[in-house]
Amino acid sequence: MSDKAATYSPRRLPELTNAGLAATAEITSYNEFNQPVEGSVAVERALTIYLDKREVVTLMTLGNYPELLILGWLRNQRMVEDIEAIKAIQVDWETESVAITTHSGVDDLDEKLSHKTVTTGCGQGTVFGDLMDDIDKVKMQQPRLRQSTIYNLLGTLNDYNEVYKNAGAVHGCALCNGENIEQFIEDVGRHNAVDAIAGHMWLKDLQGADKLFYTTGRLTSEMVIKVALMGIPVLLSRSGITRMGLDIAEKVGVTLIARAKGRHFLVYHGREFIEFDAVPESRTKAAPDQ
Amino acid sequence: MSDKAATYSPRRLPELTNAGLAATAEITSYNEFNQPVEGSVAVERALTIYLDKREVVTLMTLGNYPELLILGWLRNQRMVEDIEAIKAIQVDWETESVAITTHSGVDDLDEKLSHKTVTTGCGQGTVFGDLMDDIDKVKMQQPRLRQSTIYNLLGTLNDYNEVYKNAGAVHGCALCNGENIEQFIEDVGRHNAVDAIAGHMWLKDLQGADKLFYTTGRLTSEMVIKVALMGIPVLLSRSGITRMGLDIAEKVGVTLIARAKGRHFLVYHGREFIEFDAVPESRTKAAPDQ
Repeated sequence: MSDKAATYSPRRLPELTNAGLAATAEITSYNEFNQPVEGSVAVERALTIYLDKREVVTLMTLGNYPELLILGWLRNQRMVEDIEAIKAIQVDWETESVAITTHSGVDDLDEKLSHKTVTTGCGQGTVFGDLMDDIDKVKMQQPRLRQSTIYNLLGTLNDYNEVYKNAGAVHGCALCNGENIEQFIEDVGRHNAVDAIAGHMWLKDLQGADKLFYTTGRLTSEMVIKVALMGIPVLLSRSGITRMGLDIAEKVGVTLIARAKGRHFLVYHGREFIEFDAVPESRTKAAPDQ
Repeated sequence: MSDKAATYSPRRLPELTNAGLAATAEITSYNEFNQPVEGSVAVERALTIYLDKREVVTLMTLGNYPELLILGWLRNQRMVEDIEAIKAIQVDWETESVAITTHSGVDDLDEKLSHKTVTTGCGQGTVFGDLMDDIDKVKMQQPRLRQSTIYNLLGTLNDYNEVYKNAGAVHGCALCNGENIEQFIEDVGRHNAVDAIAGHMWLKDLQGADKLFYTTGRLTSEMVIKVALMGIPVLLSRSGITRMGLDIAEKVGVTLIARAKGRHFLVYHGREFIEFDAVPESRTKAAPDQ
């Protein structure tokens, strides 16, 4: 599909606009005392995707990282295999659209558009193509993970979630490397946020094997599939899981930790890879289970 | 489209299976003390929709109210205008599919399937057709609403959310009439839950004008649109809103109350219709804003 240059030459990356917009708007509401409360709410914007001039779909997004979102969407929907096949991604908020142009077209576009799965995810529920087919080929190597690393990450992550703290109604995702947070992205849909992280990884040519993925959202099947296909073997969530999310994590070998908040967490898969080096002193100090 | 019987004769309703399944599964996880924790997780099931033998889409659902979900999906996606046009809805978990048969076909099915919007919603993000066109025609009469009614409802709703309390990872929606809860449905996606409520209303021929809609989920644009198209003029959410959700509520005339939990709530639209008859005694007793 791509016309890749010779080995060792730099990758030919797409031209990208830089059209990120403010994520919140100021609103006055009234509380239970009938008193005005000034506050922020998350903005939600429509963005219609045109792939080589063909209308594909409209996403609803916060709009703060539209180019990374579209890049990750192209990758996670398996629309384009090689980033070098993409010539440009041009976001235009006036027309609420993004024009994606490729160097030499998209293979089997009709076929890719024909099969739709509407998932349980917030955000972009539609999955073109059968991710489950791809997931059958994935088998990951789960890394060792220290409890102290989990705690340090949760502490640092607490400082992020900027839009959520101001406005609520968004989900955050983070790409973590050891105890460092490489990228943190929020969106009105948790699937948009995970796609934007995928876009960032694709653009920077980052591998997933040494990474950890954090999300404030629930670990439903599609979330686990997406993260597995990004090659990331550890998934940490502030929320819960579904049985199907766990099934997929077991199948592909993803360490699955949920309900992670403060000192509390529940390991659903991969306990043997966790080094419990920071067990809280007393059981009574920890948050209750659930 | 339908071949409706003469006035006053009972409606000809579709034949429905009764294929609801248990919503949770028992799982052992390990907590921060490396101790086993027995608990429930939400089940997530794939359900592929065949409309007059044509494959349309696959939904991911908890699976406890599949027939109501599919009915509401047909209505909210504007696939079928009249419930009497539907002959049968047959859910078969063995093949993870649901066969919808109509009496005389679906008008403009190709056109309806061609325009896709992927929304910020959890659950079924895809909207065929342009709901926004429909919403332009809606203008509702907002009813008076007592603060004491809100509090009584929130108290009663606290006893629901069964799957959530056991397993998490679901959203609940309720159809309320005064202080009574007519129907409460949870699903892995909040859009599934709202669709199942719509299915219930359609089946029972319930009007929305005297109802209140409660959701644990966020009030994004699609949620407000769906509830408005169900004719319900009051929306109450435990979570936050988006700017676009508010824009639509203002346009169509939906009272929008969010962050409703305990004694706290924020009225984003329709304050003039709220009777503040139960203002908490002291500001310090209330939860902080946000």
